[in-house]
Amino acid sequence: MSGILYGVGVGPGDPELMTVKAWRLISTAKVIAYLAANGGESTARSIAAPFITEGAEELVIDMPMRVDPDIGQAAYDNGAKSIAAHLSAGTDVVVLCEGDPFFYGSFMYVFERLAQQFKTVVVPGVTSISASAAELGQPLCSRDDVLKILPAILDSGKLREELSTAQSAAIIKVGRHFSKVKEVLRSLDLEGRATAISHATQEQQMIQPVAGIAANALPYFTTIIVKA
Amino acid sequence: MSGILYGVGVGPGDPELMTVKAWRLISTAKVIAYLAANGGESTARSIAAPFITEGAEELVIDMPMRVDPDIGQAAYDNGAKSIAAHLSAGTDVVVLCEGDPFFYGSFMYVFERLAQQFKTVVVPGVTSISASAAELGQPLCSRDDVLKILPAILDSGKLREELSTAQSAAIIKVGRHFSKVKEVLRSLDLEGRATAISHATQEQQMIQPVAGIAANALPYFTTIIVKA
Repeated sequence: MSGILYGVGVGPGDPELMTVKAWRLISTAKVIAYLAANGGESTARSIAAPFITEGAEELVIDMPMRVDPDIGQAAYDNGAKSIAAHLSAGTDVVVLCEGDPFFYGSFMYVFERLAQQFKTVVVPGVTSISASAAELGQPLCSRDDVLKILPAILDSGKLREELSTAQSAAIIKVGRHFSKVKEVLRSLDLEGRATAISHATQEQQMIQPVAGIAANALPYFTTIIVKA
Repeated sequence: MSGILYGVGVGPGDPELMTVKAWRLISTAKVIAYLAANGGESTARSIAAPFITEGAEELVIDMPMRVDPDIGQAAYDNGAKSIAAHLSAGTDVVVLCEGDPFFYGSFMYVFERLAQQFKTVVVPGVTSISASAAELGQPLCSRDDVLKILPAILDSGKLREELSTAQSAAIIKVGRHFSKVKEVLRSLDLEGRATAISHATQEQQMIQPVAGIAANALPYFTTIIVKA
């Protein structure tokens, strides 16, 4: 009997925003896996830290960021191989994922390598979008609103087109794309209706009205919430 | 000192998909409020039931559905008045919300009546969209995908326009709008890429490929996930 592969969303940052199911699975897991970018700390692991037991074995998928995509794929291949070894030996593996595993999550790279071979259970989590709206104290969407989630990397034309026909939008992974996004918002007269929130519910959380930001870039984990 | 108004997301249905924070607030609450449609059972209350203590006082906001909007507003006015009485007396009130309070949630009607007067804390929850993707075993969105949340009540032209420029979409609150939605999906050659999921993670959960559904209507709490 093979073990079960669990893709577990740990939520946006505050450990209390983890689900009871995530807490149960993490606190009883024998093997826990997670990504660590450039050999650094894993955000998902630090969110889950209060619940990880001393005896748990940890598999670190070391992920070189912003490099050759082939190297990234090789890192996932290696990570999947380590996970598969435990599953084949009959041990369940809990893969920690920031936010929600199937919402722009890196869990998909593990999922696409292993889900056909092993029983896989995904535990959904609170997204950074929901957390951002809660921290801003501002409903994200209601009634018949169209809500769009737009990666900031999209080009200006596409962003403008999508923003002009939405009642609500969350522009995600802002980072170095901030000036472009701000320019698009200004051109649509939406700058005054946009708020940037970085690292929602984490210690370094930062909330800023877009109109007041002079910088050209913001942290990668920044979401801009726009209410038309 | 007034009490704090808590808008607490209880998640999509499975009580284990509630956050640890929601569980803590609900299990220690002295006063709990929730909507009940037409005097019937409250889904949010039934999700939270395992965590509600015997001593808790329950405020039921009786909400007549599908009626004159003015009557609905009056029901919210009355509900807000009962909640405000407890807050003014210094007691915290936990308002239970299905899914996430600020994601198409009815909490906004309480929020807009009370948040300026009382300290308000929103606890985000797992949405039915995240839960649906997890139950389908299918990533919702990844990388540079545009994800759109589209209420099924939108007219065919708007649905067609929005679906034709999205990589991922969730069409929500399908109910009696199913035939229209199916027709739009067919016209875009997306019918085979669409799956309907009703009451995700609840006992009566039902998953059906859209192409195979003969009915003209589906339950109100149905989401159609489309991957272009």
